Amino acid sequence: MNGRQTPGFVSFVGSGPGDPELLTLKAVARLKAADAVLFDDLSAGPILAHARAEADLVAVGKRAGRPSPKQDHVSRLLVDYARTGARVVRLKSGDPALFGRLEEEMDALRAAGIGYEVVPGVTSATAAAAAALIPLTRRLSARRVQFVTGHDVAGALPADLNLPALADPLATTVVFMPKRTFPVLAARLMEHGLPADTPALLAENVSRPEQRLARGTLGGLARDLAGDPGHAPALILYGPLAGEGSPGAAFPV
Amino acid sequence: MNGRQTPGFVSFVGSGPGDPELLTLKAVARLKAADAVLFDDLSAGPILAHARAEADLVAVGKRAGRPSPKQDHVSRLLVDYARTGARVVRLKSGDPALFGRLEEEMDALRAAGIGYEVVPGVTSATAAAAAALIPLTRRLSARRVQFVTGHDVAGALPADLNLPALADPLATTVVFMPKRTFPVLAARLMEHGLPADTPALLAENVSRPEQRLARGTLGGLARDLAGDPGHAPALILYGPLAGEGSPGAAFPV
Repeated sequence: MNGRQTPGFVSFVGSGPGDPELLTLKAVARLKAADAVLFDDLSAGPILAHARAEADLVAVGKRAGRPSPKQDHVSRLLVDYARTGARVVRLKSGDPALFGRLEEEMDALRAAGIGYEVVPGVTSATAAAAAALIPLTRRLSARRVQFVTGHDVAGALPADLNLPALADPLATTVVFMPKRTFPVLAARLMEHGLPADTPALLAENVSRPEQRLARGTLGGLARDLAGDPGHAPALILYGPLAGEGSPGAAFPV
Repeated sequence: MNGRQTPGFVSFVGSGPGDPELLTLKAVARLKAADAVLFDDLSAGPILAHARAEADLVAVGKRAGRPSPKQDHVSRLLVDYARTGARVVRLKSGDPALFGRLEEEMDALRAAGIGYEVVPGVTSATAAAAAALIPLTRRLSARRVQFVTGHDVAGALPADLNLPALADPLATTVVFMPKRTFPVLAARLMEHGLPADTPALLAENVSRPEQRLARGTLGGLARDLAGDPGHAPALILYGPLAGEGSPGAAFPV
């Protein structure tokens, strides 16, 4: 905390898919100005290195090796820091607007009369496409792209998915956090007419050194994941474009 | 062009929604290393300022005030530059995977045996959400988000839109480049059951100094745009979350 006499302020900052080079200049500027940084992801080390040595770095996520703190605990921390006059960065992986569960934290700040902003970031969905050298949209073959989560808070396939929309063969679909539910989702999509041989791409640790891309089909990936329940892929893309691209070339240094 | 003896290389680089601060560190690094930068958008000045003074800056887009160059002309330029050994940046606004028409240019490079990569960027869809202080997804009320274009190459509403998917009241939909087709699209969505009072947000010049956000409803925006055919909004968001948020607060400087 600091003794600043100005009102506190919270910046929700998208940190991108993981590669520290995919931070925006604005994200770096907010980190450099921060008195406190609240973050979820313990792998954020090189990103947190942009913060000043005096800044408080507070791990609040599941991956901190503890049970996930209650959401209202995070909101309370944000309010408490801001009330000391601190400039607070709330880091969110990818882009904060996509599956970032911003609303509870924003609501708490609004109720407390604390100013906030959102700094958008590179979503792992487009970073996965970049890594695979595929577009997510294409005239005629994929005019629509859609993003969904693969699980609800209990870890199950959400009951209210729009399956006809998700089974559209002329869209690119990106499933965030498909976890163990993908075999069930794939079965439902096939029941709704999406062919088992629809191209699919599994993308783990997108943009990080341990990135892994695996190309296959909807049916094939579902089988592979059913037989490997410990597997926790970050994203699955499926649709007509998911099978394209190539291993790519490295930027010459 | 340069006399480099190494093979040329092309980086497709997402330049983000317009604010130069929303460039990624990687985009800046690629611009600094570039021998040539091919860009579409003449408003990219502050972004192009990262390139070296000796780099060739080549405007190839519609907004250069001329008729749009044929796509194969752009592809040929990319190949020609790369064959001189140049490091080429092909700037694409937003993220290259979303409505960036990458495929023709990638195909030409692949055919010519030239290496390339894609550097993802911040899409204007999430930047618009950030500016409006809304999330694009929320448990229960908007589990799915979808992006579509509002016009085909002829400027008309695409004939192959999945209207039931786009009329889903439990999704957030972002229409890119809705141009003059939005009144027609809105009418089709209402025929498919989406209520006229569905919240909608028009976002122009997202993240730029001349940014304008206008909140309304699907029916209201359609009426406004029908009466103002010269209007060229950049994005329209609609769905349960589009009416939320607030004017926001400025980062204290």
